[in-house]
This record gives sequence, C-alpha cells and structure tokens, in this order.
Amino acid sequence: MTGVRILTVGVAELAGRDDAAGLAVARALRADGVPVASRAVVDEDEGALEAALGPALEGGGVVVVLAPPGGSGGDIVRRVLARLAGVRLVLSDRLLDLLAADSARRGRALPRRLERLALLPQGAQLWTAPDGLPGWALEARGALVAVLPLDAPDLSALVEQHLRPAARDRAGAGGVALVSLLRTAGVSAADAEERLAPWLGKEGPVTVSCLVVDGEVWVRLLARAPSRAVAEAALIAAGPAVREALGTDCYGVDGESLEVVVGALLRERGLSVSTAESCTGGLVAHRLTNIPGSSRYVERGVVVYSNEAKTDLLGVPADLIRAHGAVSAPVAEAMARGACRIGGTACGVAITGIAGPDGGSPEKPVGTVFVGVASPAGVEVRRFRFAGGREAVKWQSAQAALDMLRRALLA
Amino acid sequence: MTGVRILTVGVAELAGRDDAAGLAVARALRADGVPVASRAVVDEDEGALEAALGPALEGGGVVVVLAPPGGSGGDIVRRVLARLAGVRLVLSDRLLDLLAADSARRGRALPRRLERLALLPQGAQLWTAPDGLPGWALEARGALVAVLPLDAPDLSALVEQHLRPAARDRAGAGGVALVSLLRTAGVSAADAEERLAPWLGKEGPVTVSCLVVDGEVWVRLLARAPSRAVAEAALIAAGPAVREALGTDCYGVDGESLEVVVGALLRERGLSVSTAESCTGGLVAHRLTNIPGSSRYVERGVVVYSNEAKTDLLGVPADLIRAHGAVSAPVAEAMARGACRIGGTACGVAITGIAGPDGGSPEKPVGTVFVGVASPAGVEVRRFRFAGGREAVKWQSAQAALDMLRRALLA
Repeated sequence: MTGVRILTVGVAELAGRDDAAGLAVARALRADGVPVASRAVVDEDEGALEAALGPALEGGGVVVVLAPPGGSGGDIVRRVLARLAGVRLVLSDRLLDLLAADSARRGRALPRRLERLALLPQGAQLWTAPDGLPGWALEARGALVAVLPLDAPDLSALVEQHLRPAARDRAGAGGVALVSLLRTAGVSAADAEERLAPWLGKEGPVTVSCLVVDGEVWVRLLARAPSRAVAEAALIAAGPAVREALGTDCYGVDGESLEVVVGALLRERGLSVSTAESCTGGLVAHRLTNIPGSSRYVERGVVVYSNEAKTDLLGVPADLIRAHGAVSAPVAEAMARGACRIGGTACGVAITGIAGPDGGSPEKPVGTVFVGVASPAGVEVRRFRFAGGREAVKWQSAQAALDMLRRALLA
Repeated sequence: MTGVRILTVGVAELAGRDDAAGLAVARALRADGVPVASRAVVDEDEGALEAALGPALEGGGVVVVLAPPGGSGGDIVRRVLARLAGVRLVLSDRLLDLLAADSARRGRALPRRLERLALLPQGAQLWTAPDGLPGWALEARGALVAVLPLDAPDLSALVEQHLRPAARDRAGAGGVALVSLLRTAGVSAADAEERLAPWLGKEGPVTVSCLVVDGEVWVRLLARAPSRAVAEAALIAAGPAVREALGTDCYGVDGESLEVVVGALLRERGLSVSTAESCTGGLVAHRLTNIPGSSRYVERGVVVYSNEAKTDLLGVPADLIRAHGAVSAPVAEAMARGACRIGGTACGVAITGIAGPDGGSPEKPVGTVFVGVASPAGVEVRRFRFAGGREAVKWQSAQAALDMLRRALLA
C-alpha cells in the first residue's frame, strides 16, 4: 500500500503558519489508519509542480493537492494535471455557478477574468462543500488526485465529506497500516534504543522504531494487516509493554503534544496555571491556549522582558535581580511564585534565559535558560543549556517548562 | 535550471516546530539566488523515502536530505542512497573518529551498536563541521545529494561552509533565477490582480504573478538570466513600479514578516510596545520576540484570559466588561490603553475575540475579534470576522493586530 502524498502549492522557502493546511489534512487521514508518505510545499511554478506531481502519480495511490483557489496557483494545477492525465481542460457550468454564488455571497458579481477558475480537466469530479468553494478529484495514471482549495473556510468539510471516505476506500483495498507514536521528553535516542532493545529490529506483527522529531525521541509502532481489526489488535497487544519500558518519559501518544497533556492533567486535577515568560516571550501561553477549552485552566500570563516588568508584574525584588542577574535560578523561582500569586493559581511556570543571538557571557552563554515550576508539589528550578538559534532555544525552553509542569502534576 | 529539493526525514503528519530546519535551509539557499522547488517532510519509512528520493535525483540538480543522526532515520537514508547510486555501503574511519569524538565530548564512549552510523555509500564525501557531527555529499544519477544532520548544533555551520557554496556552483552553471516577493496585507487576490493588470501574464525580463500564502496575497517577481548581475538589474528596474501599485498594502519583501517590519518601525521611531492579549493567548508577544534585538522595543505583555485578569492587570473596568461583554470594541480599546499605561509605552496592541470552537453567539459568532491599537497617532479599534479553526483565527488576529500597528506607525 502506498501512503498518501500531500502537496501544498505555495512558497517553499517562506511561510507564515507554515503548512498548517497540509498538516491538518495529514492528521485527518492518519486518524483513519491511512498512512501519509510525504507532505510537501511545492513552489508555485509550473515546472516545479510537474516535477513533483508526475512521480507522485506513479505510485497509484492518493495524491492531495492544496492550492489557493484564486491567484495563479490554481491555473497551474489545472494545466499540469490535465497534461499529466492526457485530457483537455473544459469549462464546468456547475463550477461556474458555484463560483458566481460564492462571489454573490460577498456581494459581488463574478469578474469575467475569474471565469477561467471554472476550467477543469475533462473527467474531473466536483466535490461540493456545504457553502463555499468546491474541490475536485481526477483519476490520472491510476492515482486519485484530489485538489482542495487552500485557506477556504470549507476545507475541513471537504476533507470530512469527500477526502476521508475516498482515501479509506483506496487504503482499505490494499490492507491497513496503523501507526501509534509514543512521544517522549528527556530521553536521548541512544537511551531509548537501549530501553527498546527487546523490540527494535525484530520481526513480528508490529514493527518498533525510534524517530527523532525536533530533538525529541518518538517511538513508532507500525502494524500492517489485511484488516483494520487485525492491525488494531496487534497494536493493543504490543503497545503497553513498549510504553512501560519508556515509563513517565513517554508523555503522550500521536497528536498529544505537551500542551494537550498538561491541559488534560490540569483539568483532571481541577487546577489552573499562570505563566511568567521572559526569553520565550509568550510561547508557552500561546501553546497552552491553542487547546480548545484552555480558558478553563489558563488564568493569565505575563511576558516580562524588562527587569522593571519582572518587579512590577510579578513582585520579583529588584535587589534579587541585581544580586543574581535576571537570568538566574533565584529569579526563576521568584517569577514562578509571583505567577501563582498574581493569578491566584496553584501552578505557575516561569522561564528566564538568553535566547540569543546576543546577550551571552562566559558564565551564561547563549542558550542558558532557567525554568521554574510551582505546583502543589512545591517549587522546582532547573538550569538548561540549549543549542540552536533563537527560535530553537525558545521552543526547547517551552518544551522543558511544559514537561517539568507535567512531571510535577504526576508526582 | 532545476530548483533545489529539500527532504526532511520525519513524521509527515505530526510535527512540533514543523519543518523549522528545512525552512532554514531553504531560506539560506534563496539568499544566494538558488531557487527551491519543493520542501517536503517524508515519512521515516524506506519505501516512502525511496519513492521521494528516486524522482528527486532525476532532475540532476541539488537534493538536500535532513535526517536525524541517531535513530533509524539515518540508516534508511544511507541504505536508500547507496541503492539509488548503485554503490555499496563502506565504513568511513574518519567518520568513526568524528562520532567517537562527539560521544567523548558528552563524556561517553561510542557504543558498539552506534558504529553503524559510520557507514556511508561508497564515494560519499564528508562535510566536516567545526565541532560536531558532519554531513556528507554524494553524486548520484547526475544529482548532488547532501545529507545533513537534523537538529544538530552545527547544522547552520554545515549549510554555510558546504551547502551554500556547492548549491551556488550548480545553480550558477545553468543561469540564475532571482525572486523578489512583495508581501501584502488587507488585499484580496482579485484586488491585487486588478492593480497588477499591467504586468500579469506579460512577457519580459521579469515575470510577475500573484500567490496566496496563509490567506495573504504575495506578489512574486521572477527574473531568469544567464548571470546574477543581469537578473538583479532586471529586478531593480521592474520592482519599484510594482511596489508602487500595491502602495502601503505591501508591508515587506521576502523574509520580512510583519513582526520584522513592525520591529524595524518601532526602532526607527524610538518607540516601544506592550501587548494585551486575550484570544491570541501570547501569539503576538511570541512573534514580536522572535526577532533578535526585540528586547529593545518589547517592554512587556499580558495574557488576560479571564475577566479578572483584564481588570487586575490592565485596569479594564469590571462595569465596562459587564455592559459590553469581554469581546467588544470598548473593552479592546480599554485594553490597548491599559497596555500602554502599565508598560509606560507609546504603543499598545490589544486583542479580544472568540477563537472557538465554542463560545460563539448569534451576535458574536466564532471568529469575531476586536483589535485595539494605541500609538502616537491615537487609538483605533476594528472588528473582524475570521474563518477557520482556533489556530487559524489566532493567526489571522495576530496578523491584523500587527498590520494595524504598522499602518499607525506609518501614519
């Protein structure tokens, strides 16, 4: 069975939210046991798209193309796919009606020059959406190509109503590949391989391997079977022992990021949290509040970049900062206690460090970060030294802080 | 000339910082006028990697593979590349020494089972790093494949010292493609196409096209020429008129995100900013503080999820919240003024809205967001209605807030 390939038409070297739509599609397919072989951002260029799409069709599986409905990206997709499928572009009256209706909803007539958007490769099937732009699908060289409108409000409806059933049908025919990913924190790849020695490289209904993702070790359990039921049973049989070997270093499964896991622990325990961030600049609060329902346990947060802000907002004594420096264990501890006090919360997360590229010293080089975590178990402070650029240091600091809070809540 | 393809070996459907390393490599190449055709995350699976790498080699250009040095990802890359190049894997004594030195730096001996990491396809050239794991390069089927260690501290040194010169050499031989991207805010694709009608679809030394990236319209100017000097001259000749047509809706060029542009404006004007975020939960502060040197103009920020936090930290009157609701124009305005007051800054950004999926009402459906911006030009509040899921609403809210501050600073 070939995994699905997802191609987003855009700018390969620049992105805002990076490939959020491609990720969302990949996760939806994964939930059905449909493996995703690759997810790419392809330059909005006819040659680049043809070079990427041509080989993707050869596999004979499912290819998803996410393209902006306006602009020139959609034109390129239509032309390249028609050429690869060896068919002509024909005007779809039904699509023209839908485009006109979409314009009308925004109080406009469809401009003449946008009528070209109703051109589709001959044989393409429209995938309509409840109220918005449709997608379309085409059989080409034995593969099913689904073209979905990027950034459209109805993208998730198109995925649910059309793509997921179509991909399940194709994937089901050749057998099912179910994957379970065990995510860990605080473990090196070498340590994980040692603990997983009984399973790594062994034949069996479930294959176990170690991946490294953003510096974290993730353990993958892969079950290939003729049916979903058999694959599920194999994962259920093998999973617990592997997870046991990882102990509390395994923080979650599949899409369970640290912010999801920490949020669930806070809800279970009826606790809430306040954040006090210096070098992470709001990243921890941003990640915690990405989770639906987080308003129940995120009380407030402060971003205290200046020393004055640390004193004003968190009550960190100016003397303490003078004596130890703003990047120090005593200040991290005072920030964590201050976060709890101002928010009236049982938990507080505090981060102060040097994200770089400037500001380092021989005693405290760039990447030095102190994390303080307050919880009903007490206050803990740890010193870290992270590698990489500014954003990498911010990310690793946030991971360390969330993981410390998780372990404190489990204690 | 074929654009470079970048492949990161990982998990296509799950990511933490998504493909940060791939993006960094793409941007470094772009700075040299080397076009990037695609950037993909390929599943850590031998079949998936071979299906992606095989066709990538056919183009005869440069292929960059980012793979975790530990774990099984590196093994798969070595095996697949040796097979595609038709050579054997041989033990590199030099690489073995470097691996042992890397272990020694972390106070350990190299475990026997990690000696396999010193296997390389015959003919591979080591790319050494100042102090850390090396990368390697292989000529295969006419393409140059560079394999770099993902998440390694020395990745950027390897890119600078080895990849950039090698990619420039290859790209230079077939001519240069220079790209200039004009990023806009507050413009629809249809509006942009109308304003750019004199250039779109016209033949000439520079090709102009409209892309849509994360809901924003970006205008691409592409100059292909035998030499860098000719391509640069063509861009310099064509750029200003196109930018003029976009007016102040064009906020930046290439990698100039809104946080970069706003940061530069604040520095130029000697102003600083405080943030007050409800539904964005710290995203604006996080983005502003991603920029090196932002401590000079980011004073502080608060994440005020609860009503009490809005009153305590920003002095928003509880009566005002009761009368209008926390998601309202008067509260956004009071938050912006409060941010300036507590931070003692001339500028304040405030955001309050309903990110969803719950919390909407007929009058204020999910996606309703009020942004308040205070600056020396006064206080402005705008109401928005954004589409998409929770993270998409957060992102668009942050974009709108940063763009409003930018326009206020330009006024």
